[in-house]
Amino acid sequence: MRTLKLTIAYDGTDYAGWQIQNARGQKAEGRNQKPTIQGTLEQILRQILQEPVKVVGSGRTDAGVHALAQVAHLKTRSPMPCERLKAALNSLLPPDMVITQVKEAHAGFHARFDAKAKHYRYHIVNGPIVLPFERRAVHHVPVPLNLAVMRREARALLGRHDFRAFHNTGRPVADTRRTISNLRINRHNVHLVIEIEATGFLYTMVRSIVGTLIDIGRGHRPPGTMAQLLKTKDRCRVGTTAPPQGLCLVEVKY
Amino acid sequence: MRTLKLTIAYDGTDYAGWQIQNARGQKAEGRNQKPTIQGTLEQILRQILQEPVKVVGSGRTDAGVHALAQVAHLKTRSPMPCERLKAALNSLLPPDMVITQVKEAHAGFHARFDAKAKHYRYHIVNGPIVLPFERRAVHHVPVPLNLAVMRREARALLGRHDFRAFHNTGRPVADTRRTISNLRINRHNVHLVIEIEATGFLYTMVRSIVGTLIDIGRGHRPPGTMAQLLKTKDRCRVGTTAPPQGLCLVEVKY
Repeated sequence: MRTLKLTIAYDGTDYAGWQIQNARGQKAEGRNQKPTIQGTLEQILRQILQEPVKVVGSGRTDAGVHALAQVAHLKTRSPMPCERLKAALNSLLPPDMVITQVKEAHAGFHARFDAKAKHYRYHIVNGPIVLPFERRAVHHVPVPLNLAVMRREARALLGRHDFRAFHNTGRPVADTRRTISNLRINRHNVHLVIEIEATGFLYTMVRSIVGTLIDIGRGHRPPGTMAQLLKTKDRCRVGTTAPPQGLCLVEVKY
Repeated sequence: MRTLKLTIAYDGTDYAGWQIQNARGQKAEGRNQKPTIQGTLEQILRQILQEPVKVVGSGRTDAGVHALAQVAHLKTRSPMPCERLKAALNSLLPPDMVITQVKEAHAGFHARFDAKAKHYRYHIVNGPIVLPFERRAVHHVPVPLNLAVMRREARALLGRHDFRAFHNTGRPVADTRRTISNLRINRHNVHLVIEIEATGFLYTMVRSIVGTLIDIGRGHRPPGTMAQLLKTKDRCRVGTTAPPQGLCLVEVKY
């Protein structure tokens, strides 16, 4: 049995997120209208490898969220060389999903458990208009944002904290502590790009942080909000969850 | 009667090009399946201004070709301020069309006749894969291209020449001479970007030039091809017309 590591780029616009929605797998997708990334991938892999294939991702991405380099692993009995499998996948997958790498991994490799850190990018157009080509991958905030205040607030999140306030309780977890190692906000003209790296993220954590930063930047929440949220862990006081289309999984570190 | 100058950005993927296909105008579009940019614009303008509106573009863009700054003019009796008209248009137009500017023009302004030069950009991904977000706006050439030879050949096209060989005779014109003032080929990693500026372009001229340059870059045509084509004016010896999705109208100069 071989273990293969896949790196996948996708435009999440037309997908119901990474993960197959229930135990019945791909067949349940008809009801959700939109397919999932995992489901689409498993279906094409079955077709190529002529065996049932389970793909395990480094983590879920929500409906509408994109990836430049999502990582997944799979087990197969097929002797097909990595480069041939990559070419076969790219010729059969829809054009909004691209396999950028297929690599042999050691037998114990696990895309989720072995992930050491993840890097997400959130892209805001902070100006009067969004150009047609950007619209699938940005969040439009036409009102002025106070970048200096946003940066100061972002600094409060660095390090190890209990991020319970930023966690959508729809998916309960035992431990809501995570470590953010990097959180930078860069501006190039109207483009505001938030880079955030952590050992792991809770469900909707990035989008809750971004939404709260936007609220702070607009002056809808006072300076000190982030420190307060980490302290009180009160989800009701968190900002609006920023929409999925601005978010992209940029890198998974192992 | 006011004359207004409109600047329009569009993702041409889902359009049958700029121009309404026949004299019956918008109504004929049902048969072509895809709408036109001009037709969509006129329909929304009628709705906003409550009067019949004719939009005159700086020129046609073909089906699937994009624009960062197409220019058009229209005449109206409406006293609506430019900024309000722009906001109304952007709230009603589909998200793949954006009005970036509405300006008062002098009564005699004509978007086509007054255009002094046009700048087009052709975007090639010259590497093994096209990322999902790029796919609507690039042409994929996975085989190696000899950039030095392409640049040398491109230089032969600079200046005033009879470009009959690069003209699709589907749309006859009296004079096939044009002046190319700039033709640069830039490479950033796998991205090959061809910038081309001329006093005007014949139908499919940019895409015929790009297709021939690609053929030359692959070694399918010998050095000296461009000079030969300008001399013989033989359309049969021109390269494949490059596909529309790589092409974008970047600027119209007045």
